[in-house]
Amino acid sequence: MNWISASTTAQDGDLILLIGLKQRYFIFPLSTGGIFQTHRGVINHNEIIGQTWGSEIQSHNGSPFYLFQPGIEELIKTTKRNTQIMYAKDIGYILLKLNIVNGTKVIEAGIGSGSLTQVIAAIIGNEGHLYTYEKRSETQNLAKKNLKRLSIQNRVSFIEKDIGNGFDQNSIDSIFLDVPNPYDYLDNVKKALVPGGFFGCLLPTTNQVVKLLNEMRRKNFACVEVSETMLRYYQTEETKLRPTDRMVAHTGYLVFGRPVIKESLSDNNE
Amino acid sequence: MNWISASTTAQDGDLILLIGLKQRYFIFPLSTGGIFQTHRGVINHNEIIGQTWGSEIQSHNGSPFYLFQPGIEELIKTTKRNTQIMYAKDIGYILLKLNIVNGTKVIEAGIGSGSLTQVIAAIIGNEGHLYTYEKRSETQNLAKKNLKRLSIQNRVSFIEKDIGNGFDQNSIDSIFLDVPNPYDYLDNVKKALVPGGFFGCLLPTTNQVVKLLNEMRRKNFACVEVSETMLRYYQTEETKLRPTDRMVAHTGYLVFGRPVIKESLSDNNE
Amino acid sequence: MNWISASTTAQDGDLILLIGLKQRYFIFPLSTGGIFQTHRGVINHNEIIGQTWGSEIQSHNGSPFYLFQPGIEELIKTTKRNTQIMYAKDIGYILLKLNIVNGTKVIEAGIGSGSLTQVIAAIIGNEGHLYTYEKRSETQNLAKKNLKRLSIQNRVSFIEKDIGNGFDQNSIDSIFLDVPNPYDYLDNVKKALVPGGFFGCLLPTTNQVVKLLNEMRRKNFACVEVSETMLRYYQTEETKLRPTDRMVAHTGYLVFGRPVIKESLSDNNE
Amino acid sequence: MNWISASTTAQDGDLILLIGLKQRYFIFPLSTGGIFQTHRGVINHNEIIGQTWGSEIQSHNGSPFYLFQPGIEELIKTTKRNTQIMYAKDIGYILLKLNIVNGTKVIEAGIGSGSLTQVIAAIIGNEGHLYTYEKRSETQNLAKKNLKRLSIQNRVSFIEKDIGNGFDQNSIDSIFLDVPNPYDYLDNVKKALVPGGFFGCLLPTTNQVVKLLNEMRRKNFACVEVSETMLRYYQTEETKLRPTDRMVAHTGYLVFGRPVIKESLSDNNE
Repeated sequence: MNWISASTTAQDGDLILLIGLKQRYFIFPLSTGGIFQTHRGVINHNEIIGQTWGSEIQSHNGSPFYLFQPGIEELIKTTKRNTQIMYAKDIGYILLKLNIVNGTKVIEAGIGSGSLTQVIAAIIGNEGHLYTYEKRSETQNLAKKNLKRLSIQNRVSFIEKDIGNGFDQNSIDSIFLDVPNPYDYLDNVKKALVPGGFFGCLLPTTNQVVKLLNEMRRKNFACVEVSETMLRYYQTEETKLRPTDRMVAHTGYLVFGRPVIKESLSDNNE
Repeated sequence: MNWISASTTAQDGDLILLIGLKQRYFIFPLSTGGIFQTHRGVINHNEIIGQTWGSEIQSHNGSPFYLFQPGIEELIKTTKRNTQIMYAKDIGYILLKLNIVNGTKVIEAGIGSGSLTQVIAAIIGNEGHLYTYEKRSETQNLAKKNLKRLSIQNRVSFIEKDIGNGFDQNSIDSIFLDVPNPYDYLDNVKKALVPGGFFGCLLPTTNQVVKLLNEMRRKNFACVEVSETMLRYYQTEETKLRPTDRMVAHTGYLVFGRPVIKESLSDNNE
Repeated sequence: MNWISASTTAQDGDLILLIGLKQRYFIFPLSTGGIFQTHRGVINHNEIIGQTWGSEIQSHNGSPFYLFQPGIEELIKTTKRNTQIMYAKDIGYILLKLNIVNGTKVIEAGIGSGSLTQVIAAIIGNEGHLYTYEKRSETQNLAKKNLKRLSIQNRVSFIEKDIGNGFDQNSIDSIFLDVPNPYDYLDNVKKALVPGGFFGCLLPTTNQVVKLLNEMRRKNFACVEVSETMLRYYQTEETKLRPTDRMVAHTGYLVFGRPVIKESLSDNNE
Repeated sequence: MNWISASTTAQDGDLILLIGLKQRYFIFPLSTGGIFQTHRGVINHNEIIGQTWGSEIQSHNGSPFYLFQPGIEELIKTTKRNTQIMYAKDIGYILLKLNIVNGTKVIEAGIGSGSLTQVIAAIIGNEGHLYTYEKRSETQNLAKKNLKRLSIQNRVSFIEKDIGNGFDQNSIDSIFLDVPNPYDYLDNVKKALVPGGFFGCLLPTTNQVVKLLNEMRRKNFACVEVSETMLRYYQTEETKLRPTDRMVAHTGYLVFGRPVIKESLSDNNE
């Protein structure tokens, strides 16, 4: 159905995650006869095939690795990237705010390396669909490649187009724009969305948020929310429980809203 | 497929969201002849039926409301509760860490009012399944009721049982425990999970985290993570952009891990 | 020297802090024959006089109170206020950034109830001096009253004047403006400061910060810093160590800088 | 009086701060004939002597530097260190919580490189005094050297002694311990403090906080507070106002309390 196998053991063709010392992550598909090489030694794929998930596997020089099926957070954390990435802390909250669930029809633009693309595709199922706008074909190719290993590429349509010229779809449930100037596209967003649909953005600076809020007010968006998420990791030694020394301080401001039909002059919801 | 209608207008039987002044949320199913009453006036359901989503509707005394289909975040924010609630900021991150996507088989225990239940059920689709353990039948009934309005109750099995006696399933992909003493159930968790599956908890105090970390180490969990999420809202006036005065400072510490098979004596992944 | 007595017991005239049940704070001067009344009962000042600091004192109906000399943080936390207050988390950092130490000459404007006034006066000693600008005489009177109980009013000059008309001093080491439009006063700030002196502000909104940064650049301020402080309290039960449920999310953005003499065209320090 | 000169120009013997490109800080005393060398070129001290504070000075190869008198925050930020440092965000708050003002008598132990030592000495004036306990003479020498350049070393007594053997002073107003096991020294703390005095600690882990809270309860400390401070910096470009990408996530938990005399059996202040 997707990249997760129902078998309790690793098989030829499975997407696997090896975790080595110092929490180093390696994700790749198993193939009979293949060879996995790191600076901590070599493992033949054939030695992995047939092993139970969760097993410890050793490289030729004795360095240990754990064998897993990769979860979606591990996938996006290790996604090859050529641009700014999106973090799990933001993606998880965006999913809920934009009502991205089984069956949702979604547009995203400004996809970067496709972290969000992978998560949305994994969630909406075959009943939903994701339309991904990206005008740089190089970026799009990387996102396609990242997606393909999850065996869910049929749920996503990649569209190489400037969204200033409008979206090709309508009756879309949710739209997420990861672009620097979302305030320029609100009319196109409203045309593509179902009435009262869900709209969201991620913006690095307060100046952009100010401009977007102004434009959302003018274009009749309600349920407007500006928020930011933070994630603080702890060291996992039980005798020395404490936060890690440093953390990501800022990824971006999240802005959400839903278009409304304003016939009257009332100043509702403000 | 779920509670979201494909129609552009509200119809008899639809689950609707009305948002009144001061961002007051009301979620209920439309039924011909029904009456919606608040302290801001009365609206006959018949006046709502046939209105386009996103429209403004006025009560008999002129108080304005916006008409929407409720998204999952709006649903959990307004869920009737008799216990501690779970917040969207945590739920979103848990989904990613536990790889809860289309098709995932999930166990949760300690469901409260069923916020997480609703989200998981909305995401896994008919291809997945959620087994919900809760020994207090009153709590379970509230969660069932909250879930039923989403028309996805077929994806969830409610089980009234003390999890100290084990889970009835095995080959489960992901298990989330919202109970005060998860360290007492790790053996049962491992029996129910697929090899290398995903395990997570939410714990209010550092003392509980310390006990759980100790037990997870003894029971051979790898990929151990302790983290906390924070969400900061901003006021949405574009000329006065600033965080709100107060915020939720703490909901709980999140702890995640994946069981491994430790045959050797090596101290891997620590 | 200030409000702290060298005696180990409370004496007539001492400023005292009584802490009752539920951490209720009461700060007042002891006077022979005086009476302290709360809804938890009555205590005659004469019963307090002669008691050792740290003692437990009971009201006529048996309600317990602890007797202390008030520290500066306790003083500002309980200061009577008619405006927005300043928090210890911000004040402490401001002191260091503006080099407010023994002997510093300081100007502050927009004093509110005088929280910062009290702290600065307590720190600079008789070797320093604080010039406090406030055009509303009512506000100034409250600040004066709050200061007087600390017996250090001789270190502060209150000036009732609009700072748009300039400051009366020059050769000031450090200037702090708690006003909504500090960008309008930078020329006056530079005239009053010693060359290369310390300047700081507290501003609630990002819009104000943007305007101030722009003006500081134009007026040749270097060492520019924008920051915000947060303080998270924990519950103090050792078996349930955890943050409190809610916290102050925002008091204001702190902006600091030092004026420089820019003769050349170089774009230093940016 | 301290290291700050009243002159508007830099003179022989002054402690100066030069800030070069990329916010590089250099603090050193001016001396006739001296030479300042960096990888951005050479400046003769004689070229600096007589320059107005805030002036731009160029090295022999044209690299620009701003000339300032160093403030206390700049001093501690650049203090030479051989151990964990203390941050301004914590120091500022500690000053207020421990009532460290003009005239306060203070003990500190576990001084590291003497960041806190410098700040306390700068604030208490000649009317106060600081007793600094540190058993490693190497550490103590570094702290002494760091302090000496501020010309306020007369306010500090360095004591080379294990605090497990008690403090040599009594009638101390405020005690701060930066040691891993403060719970072992509470009896000695109480002996050295004035009745009802101020006590504080900085502890990295929750486990230590739990142990300290337990001991403070047993040893009758009231006004107990556990808190943590955070400081978030912003980028200072006014057209791109946003937090910096990364931040310090954790320095330590602050714990404060005041000893009380508990004669009765009542459970006050909890």
